[in-house]
Amino acid sequence: MPEMRRDPITKNWVIIATERAKRPEKPTYKVDMQENEVPYEKNCFFCSENEYMTPPEVLAYRNYNSKPDSSGWTLRAVPNKFAALNLNQEFHIKQENSLQISSYATGTSEVIIESPHHSKCLSQLDLDQVADVLRAYRDRYIAISQENAVKYILLFRNHGAQAGTSITHPHSQIIATPVIPPKIAEEFTGANDYFESTGRCVYCDMIKMELKERSRIIYENDHFISFAPYASKTPFETWIMPKFHSAKYQDLNEEQILYLSEVWKTTLFKIYKGLENPPYNYFIHTSPTQKNTDRYYHWHVELIPKLTIAAGFELGTGMYINIAIPEDCAEYLREIAVK
Amino acid sequence: MPEMRRDPITKNWVIIATERAKRPEKPTYKVDMQENEVPYEKNCFFCSENEYMTPPEVLAYRNYNSKPDSSGWTLRAVPNKFAALNLNQEFHIKQENSLQISSYATGTSEVIIESPHHSKCLSQLDLDQVADVLRAYRDRYIAISQENAVKYILLFRNHGAQAGTSITHPHSQIIATPVIPPKIAEEFTGANDYFESTGRCVYCDMIKMELKERSRIIYENDHFISFAPYASKTPFETWIMPKFHSAKYQDLNEEQILYLSEVWKTTLFKIYKGLENPPYNYFIHTSPTQKNTDRYYHWHVELIPKLTIAAGFELGTGMYINIAIPEDCAEYLREIAVK
Repeated sequence: MPEMRRDPITKNWVIIATERAKRPEKPTYKVDMQENEVPYEKNCFFCSENEYMTPPEVLAYRNYNSKPDSSGWTLRAVPNKFAALNLNQEFHIKQENSLQISSYATGTSEVIIESPHHSKCLSQLDLDQVADVLRAYRDRYIAISQENAVKYILLFRNHGAQAGTSITHPHSQIIATPVIPPKIAEEFTGANDYFESTGRCVYCDMIKMELKERSRIIYENDHFISFAPYASKTPFETWIMPKFHSAKYQDLNEEQILYLSEVWKTTLFKIYKGLENPPYNYFIHTSPTQKNTDRYYHWHVELIPKLTIAAGFELGTGMYINIAIPEDCAEYLREIAVK
Repeated sequence: MPEMRRDPITKNWVIIATERAKRPEKPTYKVDMQENEVPYEKNCFFCSENEYMTPPEVLAYRNYNSKPDSSGWTLRAVPNKFAALNLNQEFHIKQENSLQISSYATGTSEVIIESPHHSKCLSQLDLDQVADVLRAYRDRYIAISQENAVKYILLFRNHGAQAGTSITHPHSQIIATPVIPPKIAEEFTGANDYFESTGRCVYCDMIKMELKERSRIIYENDHFISFAPYASKTPFETWIMPKFHSAKYQDLNEEQILYLSEVWKTTLFKIYKGLENPPYNYFIHTSPTQKNTDRYYHWHVELIPKLTIAAGFELGTGMYINIAIPEDCAEYLREIAVK
């Protein structure tokens, strides 16, 4: 039966259209799996030995006797060579008239090179290395949040060309903006409304519901959970969340990082194996840098495998037609064995 | 210089990032141009002679002596065989708890087969045929708006597999929803705010500005205009609008349809020729069926060529990084000669 479900935070409706799964020529993608591992590629900006190709590093986890911007690292963060925003000028609103309002694009953009290995993707790295990536997210978040001009920091990852990656070597990205972006503002409003009317965090309530119903859980340990949200917008949409209330990713402590990396790696591995290495995008939604959302917000990761195309209907309405049932997707991934 | 521009209606910021155009391996697509025209394909649902493959037609422009659901037509509208919504049950909100709110997916979905010809795309049709497509949009809009359950009707077109088309034969689509979708609601709010504070239609003011500045105009005639919006979200984003104030596409009269079809065909042809037949999505934003927006709203078409991929940043923030300058895009298309 075709069903609509309402997102409890944004209050937007999603159409769960199982009939559409029968459409002819449903587009499906795969990221080319490299049969043989390629540890090094001589023209790759991000490979070890090619450090001179990037701007100077802003963070590196490296051997105690190695030098900055040389080999001997396990993870590096560098400014994005093709940054869309920079901190050279202030964010200052210029109003030509009521229809033409502009500013210098103030902000920053960095790349986190997740490992020196050219072809090993995040789901294939050791747990230690995944934990390092999550530490680097936190460390760079904290460093960038010191900039006065920065109002929001998005940590995200594009996997595969169909998900918008232009460089093959596995990496994550950070973009810091001088405004709070609309999707973030929408979540803050929704979560705050819920808090005002119930006195509770909507995300904490979601976790309680998921742990009770269990049908949408993909994986969990004592402190973190991954699941298919009730109002999933796309097939295999996956969220990762702390079970404890926390508005800020950047507040994670060492013990929490270890628990989180286990859920993160396991979830990515299930997607890699179960969906045959699909392209995907994920991003972390956390508190903004200069606004206190501690009581009502709850940081989380949203991962969207690129299995379908957002076309005229989605672009024109902002509504989504999801051709898969979230409970089916969760069950499928839950049952994928982890090697 | 990297710049941010604020959309005057939604108030969302767009990053105009000319530096990003230098990124390595920028993905670009083309719709395969069929060297030889293919008038008929025996397995195509939408070709003439294959009428039995579709549900019974709800509209057809056909020879006076031809029968419904047989050949002899120039345009047909049929229910979507793979509809995500239907009118079998009412839209009735079921609240399991505050986090699980659902309904039957009430609505309708139709396909407008633009011509019997299998491979000729809209920009290649005669002006008469383009006018027929625009008439069919209006006629089906009016018919569907009689349904009580319908709150909004979106007319849209996906061109090319990368823009989400699953069937090659040129066609447009209609989806009617039982709620006003979020992007539509956002525009109504923005336009109403502008009207409340100025007493004027924001779209009328935009047209006045575009006609004065001229740098973003792509094409115009006495009654319609196509242009690159000031805060374009993607390269070559193109809007088509009536120069006269009108909230409702469905109010177009015969004379207006003729003027509109000239701007429509010319604009599509410039995109086809100038960008070498790129995949694209377009949709018509018009008034909802049961809410009066006459004073402050102004119907328009938004066309988005699929030249880049919305990736983690766009999905995570709802902000766009546009790697092309709108004025450059408009100039380029303006100068494309129409055969």
